[in-house]
Amino acid sequence: MGELNFQNVFDKVRKDSVMVHCITNYVTINDVANIILAMDASPIMADDPIEVCEITGISDCLVINMGTLKQNIVRSMLLAGKKANESGHPIVFDPVGVGASKFRKDTAIKLLNEVHFSVIRGNISEIKTLYEWSENSYGVDAKKDDIITEDNQKKVIRMAKELAVKTKAVIVITGETDLVTDGETVYFIKNGVPEMARITGCGCMLDGVIAGFIGANQGNILEATVTAVSAMGICGEYARENAKGTGTLKVHLIDAMSNIDETWMERSNQIESRS
Amino acid sequence: MGELNFQNVFDKVRKDSVMVHCITNYVTINDVANIILAMDASPIMADDPIEVCEITGISDCLVINMGTLKQNIVRSMLLAGKKANESGHPIVFDPVGVGASKFRKDTAIKLLNEVHFSVIRGNISEIKTLYEWSENSYGVDAKKDDIITEDNQKKVIRMAKELAVKTKAVIVITGETDLVTDGETVYFIKNGVPEMARITGCGCMLDGVIAGFIGANQGNILEATVTAVSAMGICGEYARENAKGTGTLKVHLIDAMSNIDETWMERSNQIESRS
Amino acid sequence: MGELNFQNVFDKVRKDSVMVHCITNYVTINDVANIILAMDASPIMADDPIEVCEITGISDCLVINMGTLKQNIVRSMLLAGKKANESGHPIVFDPVGVGASKFRKDTAIKLLNEVHFSVIRGNISEIKTLYEWSENSYGVDAKKDDIITEDNQKKVIRMAKELAVKTKAVIVITGETDLVTDGETVYFIKNGVPEMARITGCGCMLDGVIAGFIGANQGNILEATVTAVSAMGICGEYARENAKGTGTLKVHLIDAMSNIDETWMERSNQIESRS
Repeated sequence: MGELNFQNVFDKVRKDSVMVHCITNYVTINDVANIILAMDASPIMADDPIEVCEITGISDCLVINMGTLKQNIVRSMLLAGKKANESGHPIVFDPVGVGASKFRKDTAIKLLNEVHFSVIRGNISEIKTLYEWSENSYGVDAKKDDIITEDNQKKVIRMAKELAVKTKAVIVITGETDLVTDGETVYFIKNGVPEMARITGCGCMLDGVIAGFIGANQGNILEATVTAVSAMGICGEYARENAKGTGTLKVHLIDAMSNIDETWMERSNQIESRS
Repeated sequence: MGELNFQNVFDKVRKDSVMVHCITNYVTINDVANIILAMDASPIMADDPIEVCEITGISDCLVINMGTLKQNIVRSMLLAGKKANESGHPIVFDPVGVGASKFRKDTAIKLLNEVHFSVIRGNISEIKTLYEWSENSYGVDAKKDDIITEDNQKKVIRMAKELAVKTKAVIVITGETDLVTDGETVYFIKNGVPEMARITGCGCMLDGVIAGFIGANQGNILEATVTAVSAMGICGEYARENAKGTGTLKVHLIDAMSNIDETWMERSNQIESRS
Repeated sequence: MGELNFQNVFDKVRKDSVMVHCITNYVTINDVANIILAMDASPIMADDPIEVCEITGISDCLVINMGTLKQNIVRSMLLAGKKANESGHPIVFDPVGVGASKFRKDTAIKLLNEVHFSVIRGNISEIKTLYEWSENSYGVDAKKDDIITEDNQKKVIRMAKELAVKTKAVIVITGETDLVTDGETVYFIKNGVPEMARITGCGCMLDGVIAGFIGANQGNILEATVTAVSAMGICGEYARENAKGTGTLKVHLIDAMSNIDETWMERSNQIESRS
């Protein structure tokens, strides 16, 4: 990406009032809507099968997040996903806790077979589960030791790149270090703070932020995704400076997203590699 | 209204521990419950058809908000709405995003045909959609230019008054300037701050506040509604003074509602007109 | 309990990364997840019948909270409850608003008949309703005068102890003074602040905290429950010191839980009695 052009990428989100249709979980739905509004995009939450196609039709992009998966919502996800594909709207898929039950795995497989996603975001366990359909996932959170280390780094990169090629999606693995790849270029992003793992919804909020960024920058999904991941991490860094615990951390994270501008992005800590 | 008698109106809310039954969306349900508690009323959230009539029966007033509309909840809305009508409990109706899908329009029409509402609250697009069954609504948010201006003011007033007469409800149009009318008297209220549009749920919270106010002041729906709209705006003004972004804005908005008293109402900025 | 050994009890929660499966209401689900994370346990929210057994299977403990009860979720509660019993996982049951509708009463009876709970937590009205199947419950909140007083204290103790014996559960009655009993020993806990009643979800959050504590201390359910109740109240006391209204009170409550350590527990105000 050479020089990260945050201003261009973010200005388009703000200028276009990008509308983000979210089919997401009920735990963090409020925070997702608020962070989308904080970045000056417009959230629209709707998940009944009877209306999701219309809602997706009037939106610019779609988030499908499996956090509190329900049987009747799977149909909504498939309908909206196909409609978004037909309409050329980018989709972010978050396979929350995909390893935690057969239902989640089956749903993820069905979605991957029938819908093309622009971006798939998960922690390392979830992405591994998608990759291997293995039994390694530890619910909705990654195992404590399930982070990218010097030892496993090569293996993780290969996995992410292969999954990117197979799904034709940009893969985002979030954790202590975030990894973003389109199957060719790999970015490691070291923004954010560990305390973000102690509030629910940082991942779900990031789904919404990525969706807004790629909805406004459809010609440049990879760059927009990397920018979104950095921006979220940087907001976490600012939030921690003002936080007095995990309650205020979340509130200040949304504050940060409502205040962020290009000068903040000087903090972005990215390493790009092409192998 | 001559002199706004905030103290009388609000004291009744607090004294009576008004119970507000909310059938509302899952995005902002927590904030709605908290703002109702902040004003010393009691929220009760219940939307399964099997129990809504009983819950409405033991409550003082009802909110029906279409934010995350689901097919099985439409039945709950009809059941609870009719029960509230039978029981003489006032109802606030919020046709969130009514222009965004056929399902929402059909539901709104059915509700308007079968239930009498005391207050109908929406942004200008939503109220316009109810009025015209037109295609103008822009999802859950009003179009950026969809505000009351000198140019459109006469048309908006006529629309609101006609809808008030037709539905026998007090109509509330919220936006930069809020308009409240019972079909005869029209109030313009200029409290609140633009940043309130950047947090989700200010409208939904206002639904709850109006319900609490009219539940405690059933003989004076118009005055109670105007007071509630002013109070919410004034809370937003106080909140902004303490906020450092949109995250803290929401938190301080609830703080403000828990602290408001009659002295705050000196800030109320209302223009009454009778034409 | 002699000396309250907070450090032992809490250290186990943190060391074991206890996973808490919550089938809970949609009003406060986000706060419940965040307070569980704040105490360094892991929340997992899942309520579709198709997956609840698997989710309970990989968790350490279960919360069943009837706050926004729905017909299809009753099946999930029964399935997960039985699975947790088979697996030897402790369960916290919160019969929210059990007196408010026939549906809630029927559900509570069915659950009590088919599932063994380790802890049952409610306000005095809810516990009374379980005890008497009487008509006394006033929705989700206790009646204003429905607190433990000198006059009713003996009666309340007898009721709680009898219910504990009958259900083989530790009974927790929360209010101005909290009561915890296993049918033999009775604890009165006077931590917390009255303002906690003005934010929704303090009870639901406490359910999650108790679950985490007993999940990590299965050999000592009573002590762990008493510790959890004290800890929550103490967090409320710290929160009030920093709060400027009910909005910030909630945020600081979660902050407090993320910061609490054994020194805070010097504030615990408990009276143990054995009769």
